[in-house]
Amino acid sequence: MTEVKDTETLALVAEYTDVLQIGARNMYNLSLLERVGKLRKPVLLKRGLSATIEELLMSAEYIASKGNNNIILCERGIRTSEPYTRNTLDLNAVPVIKRLSHLPIVVDPSHGTGAWDLVIPMSQAAVVAGGLLIEVRQDPQAALSDGFQSLRPHKFKLLLNRLRALAPYAQRTVLDERKVSIA
Amino acid sequence: MTEVKDTETLALVAEYTDVLQIGARNMYNLSLLERVGKLRKPVLLKRGLSATIEELLMSAEYIASKGNNNIILCERGIRTSEPYTRNTLDLNAVPVIKRLSHLPIVVDPSHGTGAWDLVIPMSQAAVVAGGLLIEVRQDPQAALSDGFQSLRPHKFKLLLNRLRALAPYAQRTVLDERKVSIA
Amino acid sequence: MTEVKDTETLALVAEYTDVLQIGARNMYNLSLLERVGKLRKPVLLKRGLSATIEELLMSAEYIASKGNNNIILCERGIRTSEPYTRNTLDLNAVPVIKRLSHLPIVVDPSHGTGAWDLVIPMSQAAVVAGGLLIEVRQDPQAALSDGFQSLRPHKFKLLLNRLRALAPYAQRTVLDERKVSIA
Amino acid sequence: MTEVKDTETLALVAEYTDVLQIGARNMYNLSLLERVGKLRKPVLLKRGLSATIEELLMSAEYIASKGNNNIILCERGIRTSEPYTRNTLDLNAVPVIKRLSHLPIVVDPSHGTGAWDLVIPMSQAAVVAGGLLIEVRQDPQAALSDGFQSLRPHKFKLLLNRLRALAPYAQRTVLDERKVSIA
Repeated sequence: MTEVKDTETLALVAEYTDVLQIGARNMYNLSLLERVGKLRKPVLLKRGLSATIEELLMSAEYIASKGNNNIILCERGIRTSEPYTRNTLDLNAVPVIKRLSHLPIVVDPSHGTGAWDLVIPMSQAAVVAGGLLIEVRQDPQAALSDGFQSLRPHKFKLLLNRLRALAPYAQRTVLDERKVSIA
Repeated sequence: MTEVKDTETLALVAEYTDVLQIGARNMYNLSLLERVGKLRKPVLLKRGLSATIEELLMSAEYIASKGNNNIILCERGIRTSEPYTRNTLDLNAVPVIKRLSHLPIVVDPSHGTGAWDLVIPMSQAAVVAGGLLIEVRQDPQAALSDGFQSLRPHKFKLLLNRLRALAPYAQRTVLDERKVSIA
Repeated sequence: MTEVKDTETLALVAEYTDVLQIGARNMYNLSLLERVGKLRKPVLLKRGLSATIEELLMSAEYIASKGNNNIILCERGIRTSEPYTRNTLDLNAVPVIKRLSHLPIVVDPSHGTGAWDLVIPMSQAAVVAGGLLIEVRQDPQAALSDGFQSLRPHKFKLLLNRLRALAPYAQRTVLDERKVSIA
Repeated sequence: MTEVKDTETLALVAEYTDVLQIGARNMYNLSLLERVGKLRKPVLLKRGLSATIEELLMSAEYIASKGNNNIILCERGIRTSEPYTRNTLDLNAVPVIKRLSHLPIVVDPSHGTGAWDLVIPMSQAAVVAGGLLIEVRQDPQAALSDGFQSLRPHKFKLLLNRLRALAPYAQRTVLDERKVSIA
């Protein structure tokens, strides 16, 4: 999965990636949504920084209206007045979206909390309600951005084991880690 | 458990209830916190409508400074710009508080969502991360307030069964429903 | 004007002050509102930290329902996701309240910004739309709280002169500074 | 002034307009900012829906870094928990930006309130603190969007007269209305 930053590099990115990611700051970028809608690649559409649930669904409609229905929605936290965490992960959005739409919804606890040590507990909470998207880095401190919210591989392995135990309860499957691709 | 609304009725309420509840609108009511701190009854302290995690802990300190350490914190959602739900349940707060404080933290998915059909999924998510506080009413439509976010008893029984299955994973115990008192 | 912190000290405070102030953290304190409603003293009611305009008017109704109609509403900023200022002063609330209610509305740019150097420009903006409430301290650095948002007397004199020039435009009167009491 | 929606139509739009407007939903659209930065047209950059003041200044830096310093910043309200108004106009941002940056800042009370009858009082407040950007429509009810927050021409003329009286106080000039172009 690779993030698409603009319409100009879209064709190039689409050639080399399996899933196109529309980042939170591009959720309202209608020309990009339109272009992605004309492709036949799966799209992960992240909720905007203060976008409402309704607006997220409208952006998905914008993609779908061009013919591409292969859309995964992503809750990644919204801006609130709570200063302790980078964003407030809105897990309410998961059951709400499951009721309003047939599209799958995953949760990004990395951006949704902004802190690596909150990723594991919030992943557990999210997997009970929906899917998961987690940032893993070999060397978080060397990351150009978002290092502080990334898990190292050994912590990710620990989390996968926990989720594997929890998954049957939530009628879910956790993939073998070798099948997990790291962006 | 009964909500204490002011210092004047506190003595009367304390005489007849096991747990004193300080509602969200009273989290900053310092005279009430002080009075409750002088009693030896367990206190459930709810997070204010837009209170920060730090302020919730400060209010608890205010009670504890008067000698009463028997305090349970309660995340019940904060006000955000998301209009679909009454409040945004901030489950991030659960692992944050577990790190910052030794006090137990429970979650109120009824106020935290404002909709009965979100109570079950958010209860599941909350129990993985912390405790639970749920509104149950025989006849929600007859409730003077908050009826729309209450579970009927048969839904509550269903939820208890689900939580009982989930609890071992979270190293938790779900009480026998006969031991659950309904406010 | 003196802030009333609780019902217990209300009688004492009321004896020695001309105007009773209900602070933002007490806007939902119904027993205090009820008690103040039974007095015949003017009340300055401040908007809660994230209270809606409608809730501010409801709290005023609570006071008025007990017989005291001598109420001044106060916009003092709300909590938002903007971290630069302590609060976001919501001047929209002034014309909205003027339309919805006959009660006078003043603006507190000290709490509404949290920074003394924003007090003057926001006072100018506020006086065009409504009244003003400003914190003045002889020695802000010695203040137990809120020193950082207080004007020193010479800055306050400067502001009064500016407002005196601006007031006729807004069909308003600025009192002689000797008539201004400093809390 | 015309809004630029994407990089593809930028050249065409730039050929026919005097000022390029970057809307709130495009404030984070880095490829668009970069392209506009390479032109030599004035740019009006609107604050994002929940963008911080710092992020607005960073987006302006992005344009300036490509060589175009002809940038006007625009405060147009942010999303908060207040439901009465469409957005909360953050006039605090005006003196803050005047302190942090040399760039001019104007205020859009149409989007900042979402209601035509709040446009006049908030324009008066804004002109005391900064510039103004107002939506005027011959027939608001026929507008495809934002009609509800637009002034009719006769109301706009009334406002201009009021601002003309207020402007000297704020050391400002109000243009002759014939020089005002209506988008």
